[in-house]
Amino acid sequence: MTRNRQILLVARPLGAVAADNFRLVETELPALADGQVLVRHHYLSLDPYMRGRMDAGESYAEPQALGEVMIGGTAGEIVASRSDRHRVGERVVGMGGWQEYQIVDGECPGALRRVDSTLIPLSAYLGAVGMPGVTAWYGLQQLIAPRPGETIVVSAASGAVGSAVGQLARLRGCRAVGIAGGPEKCRAAVEEFGFSACIDHRLHGDTRSLAAAVAAACPDGVDGHFENVGGRVLDAVLRRCNPFARIAICGLIAGYDGQAIPLREPQLILLRRLKLQGFIVSEHLDFWPQALRELGELFTSGRLRHRESIVHGIENAAAAFIGLLHGQNFGKQLVRLV
Amino acid sequence: MTRNRQILLVARPLGAVAADNFRLVETELPALADGQVLVRHHYLSLDPYMRGRMDAGESYAEPQALGEVMIGGTAGEIVASRSDRHRVGERVVGMGGWQEYQIVDGECPGALRRVDSTLIPLSAYLGAVGMPGVTAWYGLQQLIAPRPGETIVVSAASGAVGSAVGQLARLRGCRAVGIAGGPEKCRAAVEEFGFSACIDHRLHGDTRSLAAAVAAACPDGVDGHFENVGGRVLDAVLRRCNPFARIAICGLIAGYDGQAIPLREPQLILLRRLKLQGFIVSEHLDFWPQALRELGELFTSGRLRHRESIVHGIENAAAAFIGLLHGQNFGKQLVRLV
Repeated sequence: MTRNRQILLVARPLGAVAADNFRLVETELPALADGQVLVRHHYLSLDPYMRGRMDAGESYAEPQALGEVMIGGTAGEIVASRSDRHRVGERVVGMGGWQEYQIVDGECPGALRRVDSTLIPLSAYLGAVGMPGVTAWYGLQQLIAPRPGETIVVSAASGAVGSAVGQLARLRGCRAVGIAGGPEKCRAAVEEFGFSACIDHRLHGDTRSLAAAVAAACPDGVDGHFENVGGRVLDAVLRRCNPFARIAICGLIAGYDGQAIPLREPQLILLRRLKLQGFIVSEHLDFWPQALRELGELFTSGRLRHRESIVHGIENAAAAFIGLLHGQNFGKQLVRLV
Repeated sequence: MTRNRQILLVARPLGAVAADNFRLVETELPALADGQVLVRHHYLSLDPYMRGRMDAGESYAEPQALGEVMIGGTAGEIVASRSDRHRVGERVVGMGGWQEYQIVDGECPGALRRVDSTLIPLSAYLGAVGMPGVTAWYGLQQLIAPRPGETIVVSAASGAVGSAVGQLARLRGCRAVGIAGGPEKCRAAVEEFGFSACIDHRLHGDTRSLAAAVAAACPDGVDGHFENVGGRVLDAVLRRCNPFARIAICGLIAGYDGQAIPLREPQLILLRRLKLQGFIVSEHLDFWPQALRELGELFTSGRLRHRESIVHGIENAAAAFIGLLHGQNFGKQLVRLV
């Protein structure tokens, strides 16, 4: 019998996420029933949205149940099948959760997506050619709707989503300006991901100073902003927005630890006739095929680069997730399980 | 020679607007040059946007110059003409400013709009069938885009804009819920303007209490919000917004006196996937003919009601404007000059 290691959510965070919110358990996998397949996960994706699911309060989705396996995107291989629809050896992407194996109903449409890992490495289907990439694509294309020559600002610019936004914006003829934490991430944003400039928000302790840095990096003002962070970053960028700028609100990681961070100058929404719009990529499934096609083509032709932070072993998932919430990752955060 | 009384802006407000920011002067009107017409103003429109123009700082338009006649919409009659395009006796609407007469270049397209005051009283062209009506129409129709059965909340519900929003929303099959200051305004919102309910924000000293009142008045949540006020009202309504609610930001009168009022829970934009959009109706001139046609038809058929607060005499314009900024008016604030 195959043993499975899983991470359960056992306590909701009081403020910051702590290691003891999670528990690693070992279980035996039951035998497959008719129609089922066994997926061995090669990679587990760690993403900021998971923080919201850990709370019992309002989020855009049901809270993660206590005592159950943490949700999460996974990429792996079918190692046993009693389904006519899947063969052993297939590479698949799904929402397998924080565990080494998952038993899946092979007949359930949409539960597993078969992917080709000959041209695109399996891990990229959790990043640039997966949910984070589509997030970047949707927010940029559908909400910001950039025009050539415009200036697009992106926070968390070296992250899985931000780095894709910057590259897509540039490919659409825009000037991309990043905001990231620390000199290494800023350097990567410019050198690896093609941002014209990247502001290190750690060098700017208040909104005024950060807004001045945005002004210096965006001499023509800001026409579009892809917000992954919120708080001071959003306040500073709004001050430099041009009339009719579009702001896609994708993440407000700074507020995930419970406290609400006010938006300091909402009058700018009127003064500059701004549009701010929040979105969740999983609610726009109709755009995924189109987005994944473009992202896949750009990736295989080398025009869409990505960076990964990989930890090894399910036992390190919680620590890696806490690090992600504190910005310690670099690019897409993954847990490698094989 | 005709004497003209004018109100100039002579000092920018330090915080709240004060009577001595303005000065009443009397001048002699020069003789008309070729092509010019003399308009005698019957009504001067007072509107919240004027507060923004009084500051030297950023607004969505050039600041009102010091020492010059305050800008403002006017409706009047041509009393002398040296233009082939206008005859004495015509009723016209324009941006004549805070003065009794204005000399206008009759050849300048768009400077004066001829109106018919047989079916619609002249004053209504400054209200329900004028800029405030089009503001209501544009924000509701183009930004909120209501669907039948939805709940639309409107702040400053008994005002020139708010009362039109509520009536238009109801005509589109929506449930309109108002927010206004004081029992009289709330009663009028329900009895005259057809709001299903109207919340007196003066009865609710904090955001929590106001949000509870919004929840009680909107059992199915809020699908669209037309914001004329901002501050606590916006905070409270956002808490009750349904996913994908649309918020048209038309006015933030509470912040006009200089202080920025933060938006307390911007995370709701993401959690509820909201769209907030600021707009200025004068930037959407292409929609005016369509809007004015509908507003005019509704007005003449009795389905669009309005209420006016009228003071008499240019010498009372400043006090009436200060009253408007403090919510002391009721419906459209006008100054009658004849």
